[in-house]
Amino acid sequence: MKLATLRTAGGRTTAALATGNDSYLALPASDVGALLAQPAWRSMVEEAAASKEQTVIDAAAAELAPLLPRAGKVICCGLNYGDHIQEMGRDLPEYPTLFAKYADTLVGANDAVEVHGSGRVDWEAELAVVVGSELFRADEDLAREAIAGYTVVNDVSMRDWQNRTLQWFQGKAWDGTTPVGPVMVTADEAGEHFDVRGYVNGELVQQGNTSTLVFGPAHLLSYISQFTTLRPGDLVLTGTPGGVGMGMTPPRFLKDGDVLTTEIDGIGRLENQFRIHAPVAVPA
Amino acid sequence: MKLATLRTAGGRTTAALATGNDSYLALPASDVGALLAQPAWRSMVEEAAASKEQTVIDAAAAELAPLLPRAGKVICCGLNYGDHIQEMGRDLPEYPTLFAKYADTLVGANDAVEVHGSGRVDWEAELAVVVGSELFRADEDLAREAIAGYTVVNDVSMRDWQNRTLQWFQGKAWDGTTPVGPVMVTADEAGEHFDVRGYVNGELVQQGNTSTLVFGPAHLLSYISQFTTLRPGDLVLTGTPGGVGMGMTPPRFLKDGDVLTTEIDGIGRLENQFRIHAPVAVPA
Repeated sequence: MKLATLRTAGGRTTAALATGNDSYLALPASDVGALLAQPAWRSMVEEAAASKEQTVIDAAAAELAPLLPRAGKVICCGLNYGDHIQEMGRDLPEYPTLFAKYADTLVGANDAVEVHGSGRVDWEAELAVVVGSELFRADEDLAREAIAGYTVVNDVSMRDWQNRTLQWFQGKAWDGTTPVGPVMVTADEAGEHFDVRGYVNGELVQQGNTSTLVFGPAHLLSYISQFTTLRPGDLVLTGTPGGVGMGMTPPRFLKDGDVLTTEIDGIGRLENQFRIHAPVAVPA
Repeated sequence: MKLATLRTAGGRTTAALATGNDSYLALPASDVGALLAQPAWRSMVEEAAASKEQTVIDAAAAELAPLLPRAGKVICCGLNYGDHIQEMGRDLPEYPTLFAKYADTLVGANDAVEVHGSGRVDWEAELAVVVGSELFRADEDLAREAIAGYTVVNDVSMRDWQNRTLQWFQGKAWDGTTPVGPVMVTADEAGEHFDVRGYVNGELVQQGNTSTLVFGPAHLLSYISQFTTLRPGDLVLTGTPGGVGMGMTPPRFLKDGDVLTTEIDGIGRLENQFRIHAPVAVPA
């Protein structure tokens, strides 16, 4: 099944099931994260699909909210595709490079992205894993079973801020700049490997297949769970393939008005227009 | 005023006011973060203090919970004391080095700390700033007004994991390993500068004064708010002075049973015993 979080009246959201007939079925949870927090979420979805009192939302009218607007943890793996690692001039890693951001970074699949104060806005198309059950110090088998599904993310990065210091956080944790969605495909319906692509104004700039990940989804979840608890609705980003703007000669970054498209076959497509405002004076 | 979060019956917590008479007064909020989320929190505290129906908790019987058990953001500044920067062999920075962790890392002021899977557990005594009102793209004056108060934190770090990759997160974000408390002293009652000290089994190992911070509290809050929203109950750690174990010759780390004490004059003292379990097999 494919699950989404849709905006409804009054600034609210609802979890929804994509029916496959250009419509969504509203589910009794405010968002996909709140749905996954219910241990019986699968039967809740099945009941809603079988119910005679359905709230059907036309896909054309549906507005996609961030899939997991209140994710407790958004943990990212960097340097995880062989080709991207070489592009950045680094060796293949022994351990996953991990950094954190907060749910405030997330925006919907078709939302405009507003950036104030960075002139080096770069793209990172990624497969993201949605956690479906609590994990702490779990082995890889348990971690694999805890994967609720997969979604598409663009880990948009402000390279000027990212490179100010050794730690990437301040270039990665900008509110409302990380598109996520349009849906989560449940693990049972998703393939094993995914083609990940990024486009700027329709031009293909990134392409990779998750079969070339150094650390796969179950390994990442198990590894992270050795030190911190993962819970339903948490998001783990698996890293980006080659083709980011800062790796180009000369480096290339998003301009005001550019449209960034992020696509994974079998999951869906994010399409986000960027509003890059003139940098403001910030404390140095 | 001095505010704490205390454990009560049934695994619950309550915000509480330290009366100065070896007792606490229970406040109508589950923890200090929930209290600060009420815009009128000051008058709520004053009303509780003036009320004739007080719930008084004897300090000797009080059990300190993490001050901000559900902090939305715990953002840390590294390399912020001149002497610690030199100890780590680095130059004085132009920008604050920032990294994130989650509220799951926090433990109470006198809680035991359990560590599974690290053999290089190090200390970082720190002053932490508690955010009192929402900040986004705020200047330093606004940021200063948004400081609710100050507390004591030890940013305990697993140096083996921290040094596995370029990003420190996996050495910093271990559940239940970051002592915080015992109280938050409100900004109006706190001095401008603080003496920060760390002890291992009673031996002084770290000492610094926040007057030597490269980036002070208001600057840090303003800087962070340029890219992400800070909210009441968020915690910003200001970095640690010289004297960490990995800077010693030879390097020194916590052993099973060691007691780590973290102290700031005018705020209080954390005293945490460490249980360092034999490293387990973890995915490499």
